[in-house]
Amino acid sequence: MSSAKPLLSKRQSSSSSSSNGIMHKCQLSTNRSPKKVCLVGSGNWGCVIARIIAANMASSPDVFDPVLTMWVFEETVDGRKLSEIINSDHENVKYLPGYKLPTNVVAVPNLKEAVTGTDVLIFCVPHQFLGKMLPQIKEQGLVPDCIGVSLIKGIDFDDQGVVLVSSIIQTALDIDCSVLMGANVANEVAAGDFCESTLGCNDLRHGAFLQDLFHTNRFRVNVVLDPHGVELCGALKNVVALGAGFCDGLGYGGNTKAAIIRLGLIEMKKFCYRFFDGIKEDTFFESCGVADLITTCFGGRNRKCAELFVKDKGVTWEEMEATVLNGQKLQGTWTAKEVYHIIEKTHSLPEFPLFAAIYRIAFEGADPTTIVKL
Amino acid sequence: MSSAKPLLSKRQSSSSSSSNGIMHKCQLSTNRSPKKVCLVGSGNWGCVIARIIAANMASSPDVFDPVLTMWVFEETVDGRKLSEIINSDHENVKYLPGYKLPTNVVAVPNLKEAVTGTDVLIFCVPHQFLGKMLPQIKEQGLVPDCIGVSLIKGIDFDDQGVVLVSSIIQTALDIDCSVLMGANVANEVAAGDFCESTLGCNDLRHGAFLQDLFHTNRFRVNVVLDPHGVELCGALKNVVALGAGFCDGLGYGGNTKAAIIRLGLIEMKKFCYRFFDGIKEDTFFESCGVADLITTCFGGRNRKCAELFVKDKGVTWEEMEATVLNGQKLQGTWTAKEVYHIIEKTHSLPEFPLFAAIYRIAFEGADPTTIVKL
Repeated sequence: MSSAKPLLSKRQSSSSSSSNGIMHKCQLSTNRSPKKVCLVGSGNWGCVIARIIAANMASSPDVFDPVLTMWVFEETVDGRKLSEIINSDHENVKYLPGYKLPTNVVAVPNLKEAVTGTDVLIFCVPHQFLGKMLPQIKEQGLVPDCIGVSLIKGIDFDDQGVVLVSSIIQTALDIDCSVLMGANVANEVAAGDFCESTLGCNDLRHGAFLQDLFHTNRFRVNVVLDPHGVELCGALKNVVALGAGFCDGLGYGGNTKAAIIRLGLIEMKKFCYRFFDGIKEDTFFESCGVADLITTCFGGRNRKCAELFVKDKGVTWEEMEATVLNGQKLQGTWTAKEVYHIIEKTHSLPEFPLFAAIYRIAFEGADPTTIVKL
Repeated sequence: MSSAKPLLSKRQSSSSSSSNGIMHKCQLSTNRSPKKVCLVGSGNWGCVIARIIAANMASSPDVFDPVLTMWVFEETVDGRKLSEIINSDHENVKYLPGYKLPTNVVAVPNLKEAVTGTDVLIFCVPHQFLGKMLPQIKEQGLVPDCIGVSLIKGIDFDDQGVVLVSSIIQTALDIDCSVLMGANVANEVAAGDFCESTLGCNDLRHGAFLQDLFHTNRFRVNVVLDPHGVELCGALKNVVALGAGFCDGLGYGGNTKAAIIRLGLIEMKKFCYRFFDGIKEDTFFESCGVADLITTCFGGRNRKCAELFVKDKGVTWEEMEATVLNGQKLQGTWTAKEVYHIIEKTHSLPEFPLFAAIYRIAFEGADPTTIVKL
């Protein structure tokens, strides 16, 4: 996928020009039998998405096999296996209590069994799980026209540059991988609040098919042919949310916070253009762009922890993950580190003063007020 | 300025191609003596701006005459004339109590006297005052190289299409007129909070000169060569804020509000491109665009009144202006009417479903929940 430049070169933003020939496989377009779907993940967001797609699958039996297979990381909850609770009580009592899952959601704790014969693989697990899971899936083997969708927000890097989660999946499994990102606070989606989401794809046929899978009147999915732009927005907005949280912690008003969000959006754009080719400006106006940025900077957990980080001087990110987040991991701090590493390696720090300031406040003890001294 | 199309045709977005030859006048560029500045207006925002520019003028005596003349709409406050209070106590006790004005701000209640010999006219009065004031200023006569800046947020229309306040000033006085708009809640700027603002100009020389007048380390002014885009953002964001307020009144969550703000931004862009030529996409990423939109949709008075409009069924906009706003006028409702008139006249309603829904909720008794049924 990457060009020949040795370090941190731009990635191609569309696989239409990639060497693995994804565009020529015509996945899903020739075989019109009902498609099997496997959702790899059963956390909070995974269960919310399961409710949406299982209902869509049940109502289109010509297009979709009615069973949504959900791979579950097996845990014991109140002495019972989580997969058994889901399959008998139709509720993930640990990660989405209070909301029933449709009866056509079938929990399967064995990963190889879960992915067998599936046409669509939806990834919704912590980023760090992938390293172990992808080889198992590869080993199991996939049907020739299988496609993937990543709902995972995060980025990585290697000596070639920025590495997107969708690219890791694409490379490991040799399948095309779209992404779904947007202003989608999980519990609000579960409650049926109106919202939008953005599906970024390499191939509009996959985009149209996946839109049928995810879209409802209350969860409106726009398809854009810019998967890397969509995915980068989903990851980078969490870094900006730390900046917004620092503002809140310092007691700054709406003008200042709006300025930080705007400067963050500018650096998000710059980062995308700097490290990837083919990013589309319009993507920043989609739900994955400005809308998700707003939601995250006013309501998300990255913002909240960053506010506490300033207010409770001395508290560590790890302590907040353990207490405030009940063991969940912060994505913004992790992404801030990756982003800082990349812009430092490429001698681009002067181009990204806000990202650099956020990193230094979060990890190098810089005064939080430096957020407005860029 | 406008093209020959009979109704609601596109306006030119840069006067470089206009017939009044503004670009060829080289205003302010040849005469290097200190420039006189007159601020026409002394309300809340006017006084905040007076504090900034009076300080800048005092510190650059080579560039600016040290006296900032401020035209004051004369009122009696506690038995004293407001202009006398300002000139003796250096505080506008009615519109910006608690913040001193620099001693080089001189209040002048006579408009003709105030504008005499001025090189820079800054307009910061309610839109509806201009009709009476501009002929008086014209009658008084202006120095040949005088330029204007409008801080007024609002739009109008005639049988040629949308009419901007800056164009009204430009046409009435035959001077070039820039605009200053941004995420600038007045009292936060007065308190010295860090923020940004956008100066939209027709001529970069004027932009650079005006940046010297307005810019400080805490009030950061970006100059863009897109005055109409900047001004339209400043007006249209108040319409979107009504939609955001309806969401709040309905108790909708962050996903829904972010979706409404995003859809509003898309319609703001579409409106600009539909009715004006030469609008720059980058303008929407400036403080006047996305940042001001965010501030206004989370903190402004248009949002607040729209929330109450939904919660207190039966309350009228006029009642809220009288009570909640202490007699001040809502800009969003007025602009929503103008915008609706224009898109209806041009048979463009299907292109602006959110603007249309906001108008119908505000003025035609439509159910507020139609805001998410576009």
